[in-house]
Amino acid sequence: MAAKKKAAAKTIRIWARRQEAVECLANKEWCDFASTDLASACQDANLVIICAPVKRIIELSTQIAPLLHGFPIVTDVGSAKQDIVAECTRIFEKSAHFIGSHPMAGSEKTGMENAEADLFEDRTCFVTPTEKTTELLVNTVNDFWAALGSSVIQETPQRHDELTAKASHSPHLIAAALASYLNAECPDAGKFCGNGLRDTTRIASGDPALWTEIIFQNKNEILKSLAGFQSELQKFSEAIANDDQNATNALLSQGKEFRDSLV
Amino acid sequence: MAAKKKAAAKTIRIWARRQEAVECLANKEWCDFASTDLASACQDANLVIICAPVKRIIELSTQIAPLLHGFPIVTDVGSAKQDIVAECTRIFEKSAHFIGSHPMAGSEKTGMENAEADLFEDRTCFVTPTEKTTELLVNTVNDFWAALGSSVIQETPQRHDELTAKASHSPHLIAAALASYLNAECPDAGKFCGNGLRDTTRIASGDPALWTEIIFQNKNEILKSLAGFQSELQKFSEAIANDDQNATNALLSQGKEFRDSLV
Repeated sequence: MAAKKKAAAKTIRIWARRQEAVECLANKEWCDFASTDLASACQDANLVIICAPVKRIIELSTQIAPLLHGFPIVTDVGSAKQDIVAECTRIFEKSAHFIGSHPMAGSEKTGMENAEADLFEDRTCFVTPTEKTTELLVNTVNDFWAALGSSVIQETPQRHDELTAKASHSPHLIAAALASYLNAECPDAGKFCGNGLRDTTRIASGDPALWTEIIFQNKNEILKSLAGFQSELQKFSEAIANDDQNATNALLSQGKEFRDSLV
Repeated sequence: MAAKKKAAAKTIRIWARRQEAVECLANKEWCDFASTDLASACQDANLVIICAPVKRIIELSTQIAPLLHGFPIVTDVGSAKQDIVAECTRIFEKSAHFIGSHPMAGSEKTGMENAEADLFEDRTCFVTPTEKTTELLVNTVNDFWAALGSSVIQETPQRHDELTAKASHSPHLIAAALASYLNAECPDAGKFCGNGLRDTTRIASGDPALWTEIIFQNKNEILKSLAGFQSELQKFSEAIANDDQNATNALLSQGKEFRDSLV
C-alpha cells in the first residue's frame, strides 16, 4: 500500500497465505495482483520484500529462491538480522541479491484492516549489508525505504542486533517483566495507577508469540543487554539501601539526561 | 484553584514561600488571600492542605502546629504515607486532626503557570486514616477529594506505601535504570528508537531531586518491590538462556494479561 501510494514501485504483486486474504486484496486499488502461489507472485520481480514473522522469513526464502529469475534484489523486514542475513545470503546465493532490512515501524495492531500507507513516514529503517554486498544494490534498497518516508541507517547485521537488543528488545522484556511481576503482586493496580505505569508497561501488551520469535532470533545480544540493565538497576538498589541520596540523585539524573535526549 | 472552581471550599487562603508567588496569587480570582506568613494563611481554617515536597511536609507541619486554633483537619499530598502519618499525627496531637492524603495526579510540569483546575478529575486519591482516626473526619477528607473529581481509596498508611512502591515508585526506578543504562550503552538510541522506548522511559524525565525525596520516604517497601521485580526479570533471562520458548511465551502472556487490564 505504501509502495504504490508513494510511487516507489510500478507494479505490486502480493503473495498471501490465505485465500480470503487474496480475495480481499483483489479489491484494493493499490494491489495489481494477488495469489496464494509464490511462483506467480514473484514473477518478473525486481525487488522481493519478505514480510513475515522472523521464523517464517527463512522458511519462505527457501521456497522462493528456486522460483526467481533474473537475479532480483530480495529484502525482508525481520527485527533481528544476524541469523536472517547469514541464512538468506546462503539461500539466495544462486538466484538473488539478499540485503536485510528492518523498518522500525509497526503497532500492536495486526491484519490488513489496520494497514496504513503512512506507516513508514518519519520512521527509521535499518539496512544491513555485509562486506560482500555491492554498494549500488544497497542504494536501491535504501532508496526504496526513503521513498516510503523513512530515514535509513546502514549498519552491519551484528551491530544492528546489538543496538536493537539494547534499545528495543530488552526494553520490551523489562516492560513485560514489570507487568508480569505486577500481575502476581499488585493485580488491582489499574484501580489507582497513574499514566506513568500505563506508559511504562504499554509495550507489554504486544503479541507474546510474535515477541517470543523475535527474542529467540536475537537471544545472545538480548541476554548481554539484560545483564547490563540488571547491574544498572542493582546500582540504584544499593544506593537506596545505603541511604546514599547523592548517588541516587546522580543515577536518576543520568536517566533523565538520556530520556530528555529522545524528545 | 480546583477547590474554588469545584465549590469544595468557600474561602481559599494560600501560603507561599516566595513574595513573587504571593503577588502573582493576588491577581487570581480563585485566591481570596495569599501571604508568606504561615499564621495569617492558616487563620480560621477548617481544612489545612499541606502541598509541598515530601521532606518539607514534616518541617512545615512543625511550624504550622502551634499556629492553629479550633482543632481543624490537616491533610497533605505526600506520595509516601507511613513516615508522614506517624510524624504528623504526633506533631498535630494537641492542635489538629491529621489525616494523610495522596492524590495520584500531577505531571512533570511544575509551578503556578502550569496549574489546572481539572488536575484531579478522574484520578484516584488515597486517604490513609489510622485506627485512631474518627470516621466522620475521614469522610470530610474523602468528600473534599471527591468534590475535586477524584475517586477515593481508603487504605492504611502501610498498605498505601506497599501498593505505591509496587505500582508507582519501583516502575519509576526501573524506567530510570533503563534510561541510565542506555545513556552509557546506547546514547544515540534517539536516532532510531520507536515510540515503545519513548513510552517505557517517559517517567525517567521526572525531577531527580523530587524523586530522590519520594524514594527515601518509602525506602523499605521500594527495596522489597525492586527485589521482586529483579527475580521476575531473572525468570525471563533464564527462560531465554535455556532456549525455553514455552516459558518465555508464558511469561510474556502474564505481562500482557496485566497490561490489558489497565485499559
